Amino acid sequence: MDRILLGHGSGGSLMHKLVREYFVPEFEMKSLGDSAVIDINSIFQTLTSVNRPERPNFKLAFTTDSYVVSPIFFPGGNIGELAVYGTVNDLAMAGAEPLYISAGFIFEEGFLIEDLKKILAAMSAAAKKAGVKIIAGDTKVVNKGKGDGIFINTSGIGIIREGVNISPLNIRAGDKIIVSGMAGNHGIAVIAERNGLSFNPPVLSDTAPLNHVVQEMLACGEVHAMRDPTRGGIATTLKEMALESGLCFMIEENAIPVANGVRGASELLGLDPLYVANEGILLAVVKRKDAETLLKTLRKNPYGENANIIGYVSESPSGKVLLKTKIGGNRMLDMLSGEQLPRIC
Amino acid sequence: MDRILLGHGSGGSLMHKLVREYFVPEFEMKSLGDSAVIDINSIFQTLTSVNRPERPNFKLAFTTDSYVVSPIFFPGGNIGELAVYGTVNDLAMAGAEPLYISAGFIFEEGFLIEDLKKILAAMSAAAKKAGVKIIAGDTKVVNKGKGDGIFINTSGIGIIREGVNISPLNIRAGDKIIVSGMAGNHGIAVIAERNGLSFNPPVLSDTAPLNHVVQEMLACGEVHAMRDPTRGGIATTLKEMALESGLCFMIEENAIPVANGVRGASELLGLDPLYVANEGILLAVVKRKDAETLLKTLRKNPYGENANIIGYVSESPSGKVLLKTKIGGNRMLDMLSGEQLPRIC
Repeated sequence: MDRILLGHGSGGSLMHKLVREYFVPEFEMKSLGDSAVIDINSIFQTLTSVNRPERPNFKLAFTTDSYVVSPIFFPGGNIGELAVYGTVNDLAMAGAEPLYISAGFIFEEGFLIEDLKKILAAMSAAAKKAGVKIIAGDTKVVNKGKGDGIFINTSGIGIIREGVNISPLNIRAGDKIIVSGMAGNHGIAVIAERNGLSFNPPVLSDTAPLNHVVQEMLACGEVHAMRDPTRGGIATTLKEMALESGLCFMIEENAIPVANGVRGASELLGLDPLYVANEGILLAVVKRKDAETLLKTLRKNPYGENANIIGYVSESPSGKVLLKTKIGGNRMLDMLSGEQLPRIC
Repeated sequence: MDRILLGHGSGGSLMHKLVREYFVPEFEMKSLGDSAVIDINSIFQTLTSVNRPERPNFKLAFTTDSYVVSPIFFPGGNIGELAVYGTVNDLAMAGAEPLYISAGFIFEEGFLIEDLKKILAAMSAAAKKAGVKIIAGDTKVVNKGKGDGIFINTSGIGIIREGVNISPLNIRAGDKIIVSGMAGNHGIAVIAERNGLSFNPPVLSDTAPLNHVVQEMLACGEVHAMRDPTRGGIATTLKEMALESGLCFMIEENAIPVANGVRGASELLGLDPLYVANEGILLAVVKRKDAETLLKTLRKNPYGENANIIGYVSESPSGKVLLKTKIGGNRMLDMLSGEQLPRIC
């Protein structure tokens, strides 16, 4: 493989391989996609000129994401709010409270100012809804034919309070696995728009900020790991967490909520909703005895009203995701391979 | 004007107008391009659950920049080190010590892995040289013909020590204006490569990390304002600072160092080196009595060996930059208008 393929951007196994082989060895990170956690004490330690016995009791989370979704306007949202919520959610998945966002724009020459205004208004409204401030920005323009309208990068900074520790390494056998909402809405909404399909009722993107519901969860139960199943969908994200924890995820297909419209569209398009991107749901692996409480908390929040417990963690086989299918069979879930849905976010 | 033009990305007056009209009203920022400064006390204040009388005595700087330079390999560097140093320098211009960088990549399908490896190696080496860590990242892929090989966004976090306060608002009449090196090398190197021109000796990009030399300056004199004259060149950056300070900048053209190769190439290409992008120099407005000390400090550092005092600040006319030309005339410098050199960084 000597060239970048569309599949390298899909969030699946090709992308993981690329990142592992070329990015991780050069950079100070174990993976791409998750928030980096900065121990604020390390910053204090660089301030050697002053002796400061007191230590701050929080960490910073830092993350970045570029948005290249096509089309830029889709049922339920546009690239602007997607870019804000996507980065807000990345921070939230680390247990962080998002505070500050940067926004870098790459325009293709000829992009309509009218569309820019709509996108900026959506970003501004999204920032307010999520409670973050967009405080840094940049604009670049490339020649006609060398871009595709607009690409947006957002990076974000959040704080992780003392005592909050969210990581796949905390997952234990016996933990319960919760999904906060229905599978596949974002991906189906985008692909329908791209292909000129419409459904009745329409399938809308689920793009939404999850930071507040995450804080509600952290206040009422022990959450071991969280991740938002964007590119690659629920299946890929479960597989990532199973691999990183070294444990086995046992999932009930029947327990995963899928809207009728998404189910129908997926059949029509030959897609599996478990591999379709989401932009407003999370997967949480939680302490068994707290699962019901967490589920109740989630269901009280509009962004979690369709939440469900979809399975549990077992000791072995290590790194596997086993799906008990609707018809009673068993299926091994792997990461998305290839490019099921390019440019979905 | 109903569409984005190439000139909107040039760093000049068109871009400033776009940002002022559409971005600033929606976002929590006064301008694009500069680092945002985060008062870390505001973060402490969000941690209301614990009473913490002790307060951290530093601020955070946060900035973002996308890099779309064409071609991606040019004499003296490539898009990778440019993306690291550009963001390092943005932070340094706020008086910050850069610590952490994120890197978001947008690839065009078909991009050569061999080129990716070179770029990642350059980024890694640049991060080491600047003393920053690349801790967060993201990769996206767009279809062939919808991008241009590779675009990179970097965002950065730095700390600003107690007592450091760099802002155009601190500029006073009587201040001296220093440039840390020669004008126009980066822009000429890129444009030469783009047009298949070569010079003997070759003109190399000046891409370089300025954070260490900035710290040396801050330790030995009073620096009121700093900015790196990238897109739009020295002239545009001086004009920005004159406008923001409400004072007048009196500049001696003879005092601005320009390499012979850059001078010759600029004449050949019909360019003014004062409007050509730089990636390894800074403009500093400093207290008059500290100017000579700061100049000496700069000249001891390899990145400042061609530094010079190029003028001073006077009370009026407000917001103007007056250039005393080589032949003894006077010329008013304005921001770059239009797209002298698109996609220079």
